[in-house]
Parts: sequence; C-alpha cells; structure tokens
Amino acid sequence: MSDWQVISGGITAPRGYRASGIKAGLKPSGTPDLALILSDVEAIAAGVFTTSQVRAACVDYCRQRLQAKPSIKAILCNAGQANAATGEQGWADALESAEALGKALNIDPEMILLASTGVIGKRIKMDALKAAIPELVAQASENGGEAAAKAIITTDLVPKSIALETHFGDRPVRVGGIAKGSGMIHPNMATMLAFVTCDAAVSPPLWQEMLTRAANRSFNQITVDGDTSTNDSLIALANGQSRTPAITASGPEADKLEAMLTAVCEHLAKAIARDGEGATCLIEVQVTGAANEAAANQVAKTIVGSSLVKSAIFGHDPNWGRIAAAAGRAGVRFEQENLQIKLGEFLMLEAGQPQAFDQASASAYLKQATLGEYLKEDTVLISVKIGGGPGTGKAWGCDLSYDYVKINAEYTT
Amino acid sequence: MSDWQVISGGITAPRGYRASGIKAGLKPSGTPDLALILSDVEAIAAGVFTTSQVRAACVDYCRQRLQAKPSIKAILCNAGQANAATGEQGWADALESAEALGKALNIDPEMILLASTGVIGKRIKMDALKAAIPELVAQASENGGEAAAKAIITTDLVPKSIALETHFGDRPVRVGGIAKGSGMIHPNMATMLAFVTCDAAVSPPLWQEMLTRAANRSFNQITVDGDTSTNDSLIALANGQSRTPAITASGPEADKLEAMLTAVCEHLAKAIARDGEGATCLIEVQVTGAANEAAANQVAKTIVGSSLVKSAIFGHDPNWGRIAAAAGRAGVRFEQENLQIKLGEFLMLEAGQPQAFDQASASAYLKQATLGEYLKEDTVLISVKIGGGPGTGKAWGCDLSYDYVKINAEYTT
Repeated sequence: MSDWQVISGGITAPRGYRASGIKAGLKPSGTPDLALILSDVEAIAAGVFTTSQVRAACVDYCRQRLQAKPSIKAILCNAGQANAATGEQGWADALESAEALGKALNIDPEMILLASTGVIGKRIKMDALKAAIPELVAQASENGGEAAAKAIITTDLVPKSIALETHFGDRPVRVGGIAKGSGMIHPNMATMLAFVTCDAAVSPPLWQEMLTRAANRSFNQITVDGDTSTNDSLIALANGQSRTPAITASGPEADKLEAMLTAVCEHLAKAIARDGEGATCLIEVQVTGAANEAAANQVAKTIVGSSLVKSAIFGHDPNWGRIAAAAGRAGVRFEQENLQIKLGEFLMLEAGQPQAFDQASASAYLKQATLGEYLKEDTVLISVKIGGGPGTGKAWGCDLSYDYVKINAEYTT
Repeated sequence: MSDWQVISGGITAPRGYRASGIKAGLKPSGTPDLALILSDVEAIAAGVFTTSQVRAACVDYCRQRLQAKPSIKAILCNAGQANAATGEQGWADALESAEALGKALNIDPEMILLASTGVIGKRIKMDALKAAIPELVAQASENGGEAAAKAIITTDLVPKSIALETHFGDRPVRVGGIAKGSGMIHPNMATMLAFVTCDAAVSPPLWQEMLTRAANRSFNQITVDGDTSTNDSLIALANGQSRTPAITASGPEADKLEAMLTAVCEHLAKAIARDGEGATCLIEVQVTGAANEAAANQVAKTIVGSSLVKSAIFGHDPNWGRIAAAAGRAGVRFEQENLQIKLGEFLMLEAGQPQAFDQASASAYLKQATLGEYLKEDTVLISVKIGGGPGTGKAWGCDLSYDYVKINAEYTT
C-alpha cells in the first residue's frame, strides 16, 4: 500500500541535515544530554506544542520564533532539566542558550529553536551547556542522527529513530524523525519531544497543516500515564534539498508526503508508548463503528489510558469488563447493546452479551506479549466496536507495572 | 461552626431503619457479601448514578424505580459480582433478586432498590443469593449498620461508616451513611456505592437537589485511579421518623440538613480515597483563586488524579513540578505568572517563581503522612492558588504504590 521504504540514518537521512549528541554534564547519570540538529539551508519549520497552562520557557520561545518567521536552521535540545516553571530566569536562560549557539554557528539566534526535557522547576545548567557548545557544533555530521536520538532521552530505555524514503519522479525524498518519551506522556497537542526532518520542498502553511493532522493521528493518540507535559514539542523541518518541485497545494505529491510524515510520526509515537516507564508491552486499541474519527479516537484513548486495563494486561488477566467500563466512561454516547469487544482473536462481548472464551489461552496471549523482547511481537491488540457508524480510530499505550511506580517514586530525590 | 455531633450506629443511627450483612457465599473470599437496608416506613429516596454508557443492571433498575416513584422501603446490595455488561440475563437476575426479597419481606418488589459490586461481566450467583435471603431478613436489626457496612466491601481494607446528629427544636435529626470504594474510583456522577439514611422529613425534589449538590462536593471530587465504574450508585433515604416538620423549601432547617448530608458524603468520600487500592495516605488538594467553584474543582481533581504526583508522594518526593504540570493541563485557563504551590507548610512556587525550601524536611512531611496509621494524621495537603478569583475547590485522592498494581494485576485470575 505504502510506496516508501525504511532506510537508516534517522534525522540525518534526508539531504542537507547534520546532527550531533554529546555528554555535556547536564544529567546526573553522565549519559549524553545535549543534541543539535542543523539544516545546511534555511528549512521551513512547523511545530505543535503542549496545551498546558504551565509551559517550559523553550515552548514559549519556539512559539514566538515560529510566529515571527516559519523557517530556521538549527534545533538545540538539552536533557536533564526541563526549564519549566522556572520563571523569568528560565526565560533568560533560553535566550542565552540560543545566543551561545548562534555565536558558535555564526547564525542569527532567531534561526534556532530550543527544546528541553528533565525535571520541572530546574534551571538548565548554563555553564555546562555553554562550555559544551563548541564540541557539539564540531561533532555535527551527516551521520549524527543516532547520536542526537541518544542525547535527547531521559528515562527512555532505547533511543527512537526512523527514516523513510520515497521517490517523486526519479528523485528520492526522505523523512526522518527522532523522539523521546517515557513518562508524563499524554500529549494533548504533541508528545514529549519529537523532531522530524524532511528534504522535500513544501510551503509553510501546508507543512504546518500536515504536521497537525499527523500529530492528531499519532502522538495525540498515545498515553503512558495521563500526564500532559509542560514541554511537549514536535518540530518538523523541510529544507527542499531533495531538489523536487515545491509542494504548495493538495495533490498526489502532497498526499504522499503527508502519508509518509504520518507514518514517521506513528512509528515514533508507538515507540514512545512501547517504551513507557515500566512498560512490558505495547497496547493498541482499535475502535470501529463510531459516528466519526474523533469519537473513535476518544474511546480508543480512554481505554488505552485506563489504569485498570493497563494493570490487568501486566497481570496477564483477560479482564474484558475493565475494557467495557473504560469505553463506557469515554464521554462518547453509544448503546451497550451494540458493544463488541475482542482481545487479540478472542471474542469476549458480542452485542452486549458476554461470550464464552478460553481464559487460559487468552491469558497466554497476554503473557506472550508482555514477555516479548523489545520491538518484537509484543503488541496486545484490543478491538472494540461501539455501533454501526463509519468512524474508526486507534490509540497506543503500555501496561502499568511495578516499575512505573518505582521509577516515578524515585525520580528526583 | 457545625452544630451537629458524630454518633455511633452508621446507617441504623437514624430512627426507623434496620440493616443486616451476612455471608451468602457470593465472594470467593468467604467474607460477608450481602447487605440489606430497611426502612420501617416508606422513605423518600434520591439517587445519583454512574454516567457511564456501560451500566450495571442494578443501575438501570434503580433509575427506572426512582423515576416511577421516589419512595422505597429496602435496598439490597451484593458484593462479588457487578452484574454489569451481563446483557439480558443480568437484567432478569436483577428483577428476580427484587422479587425474591419482596416475597421474604412481604412488600411490593417495586419498593426495593438494588446495588451490586464486584467483577464486571459476571452474573450474580443467584442460587446462593436466593438461599441467603431468609437469613438476611431475619438478621435485620437496629444495630445492623456495621454489619451492612462490612458486607458491601470488596478490596476495601476497612468498612466505611458515619452518623451525625443535630436537633430541629428539641427533636434529634440524624443522618447516617456507609460506602465502599477502593478501585475503579473516579466518580463522574457518584461514587462506587454509598448509602445514606436520614430520619428527617423532606420533599422528594428538595432531597434529590441536596443529594446532587452534596455528591458534587464530595464523591465527585475523589479519584483513586481515574476509572469511573459501571456501578457507581449513591442512594439517600429520608423516612421522616424524627417526627420533625417536613422540609419542603429552602430555609434554616433545609440548610442545616444539607450541610449535614454534605458532611456525611464528604466523610465517606474521603474514607474511600484514603482506602484506595494500595494507598498509604490521603491526599487533599485545595485550589483557590479560580474564576468559580467548578474551575477550582477541576484543577484540584486533575492534580489529585495525576499518576506522577501520586507516585512522587508514595516515594516521599517533594516534586512540586509535577503539581504544576498537572495544574497546567487541567483545562482551566490561568497565567503561570500567578501560580502558587504549597506542599503542607512548604512554599515551593510563588508568582510563578521557584522558591528555595528544605528538601529534607518536605520529604519528611510526606514520609510522616504515608507511614501514618489508618485514619490518623495521614493527610498530605497540597494548596494551589491559580489567580485572584473567588472560586475555591477541594479534591481527595491517594498515592500510587506498588500495591495498586499488584492488586489490579491479580484481581480476576
């Protein structure tokens, strides 16, 4: 169906991008914590940010920059300190970060976007950050995508990266992306942090439209713990270095580009859900029969976010009643006489009537998923039909384990 | 301020009520699982029920009964099977339960309300229930309030019961209540199960109004895990046996009765939150400075429901950034420059600026609360001011511990 293929390289797979990721001494763990994404030329930039009333300085900074002019050359991202709820000092730190990087790159600071992740209420360690910038710039290369993916993570167990390639005529067009997630994941506009690069040429408003739709079908449909972050940012660049004709309106090329952008976002969103704090599996909920896509999405996201559903799956317990309960409280009207619930291939409720099924086999299905290796066949599929409408939707999450509590009970102290 | 006192007796403290609770063999644990509340005379009945699209048969049954006529004589409650998502058979079981009890009590089955709690999708064990009804009726007594409180619980650690007494003129007026909670607690209309008895005489519409307001300030402001149940029911009876003048309109007596009713509901709601599955403490969030009560309540409930805030408190971690993040995503508009956050007596954020505070002492404050004995001084107080408005609100919840996951990973299998 899709006429693109997965290629290596992540965000540096598209032409005209360099990236780096280094240890700047910002995170107590001593792992890489500072990342840079560079476009050789000015790239069209679109962004989707947290809807929280409490926002990181970098979020306000990016919104201002993109409003003034939707093209940039660099993104600087630090891990370790969120620079959220840091008041005026946090804003000053953001400005200073952009200035320091602008000087090192010899570009206008206004050509730079910023992102931060880590502990809320903590300032960025500015001395360490500024001291690290020369090395960060020196390291930037066309093979730096993986290093950048590693440097933006916090409690993530693995870096998250993807690149896709298609052709417009005989010229390759590529979209790459990296993301970090793990905790405080319940995006309500975007996810924690995700950066997408693309070498197509596309008009700024169209690129922003595509990104918003892609976010609604990917990052906005995942949840780990129901907590929307103060720092959620999804930034997508398109620098035209594929030398393909500029896309300025809908048409086959625009559709193809948006489908590829959505696929990159969905891959990264699922990777975030699968790597949720303490998770042992990915849960996918598919809802059909709703009045429209929004209603289906809402039911799907409510089910995948239910602590009771998540705990049951962790315990290999095919407790479909919790799925029914979550669907019922999603705020979407339906008749329970029409409700159908399947867990994997097991039909558990049909037309509102409980069905006999093999408990042991259903439990084994959950066990096989939760004990799977990372990124292997470890998806638990929940299918719910709520009526006869045309609306379908998907959402992704993970199970709730002892480790989620452990990780979050011990995060700052 | 309040001119009433706490008395013993729970739901049988008000005049003209009897109750019982026995082991009917419905729960695998073998603990009491069948409760009866009886009024000597027809009592005015008001109810508040789950808003879920997936509802237990008993919820639909009670709604129908109360719509037809707002007075009843008995409430039958079973624990062990929720009789929710049980289709037509579940509805037939509900009718048969009422008929069996009506026969034993020699009253019209329409004079009976029903409530169930337990595993969703499971039918009530009808043979066991019917066999137990004669003993249940025989045991009903004016001292049976505590037995009934014990027989309605599931994963609750302790029964929840309260009774208050005031005087209208020289005649005592009493309100008693029992409740069960523990899991799937995020009421969106009422809580899991709560039953309130009162011996005042009050008109049906006024009694329903009072109950709805009381629920909005108590049960609807607690959350354990964000999951609204299929069975949430709050039923309040007023049988007039205090022989005080009938209350039919607002006035000092109506205000006093509503305040007492609200106090009973708040006590039971807090008891449910404090006894949330795996909880080690009660969390109270007080929000001030909102535009109105509804906005304040929304912010308070979002904070108290945040998995990250709950985990931090379990870990004795004064991580106020998570409180800020939860406030920010509550869907209530405010300026982060006005945000103030206190944890107990510790000021952590003032006018959007982080404040220096003693981490060790703040952690000790949380430790003292989470290690307290049940119903002792184990409340963690979070105070949040979001602006200069007149709206205030409160919400209650509990911390998120390993045991929450353990309990819910192992519930049905």
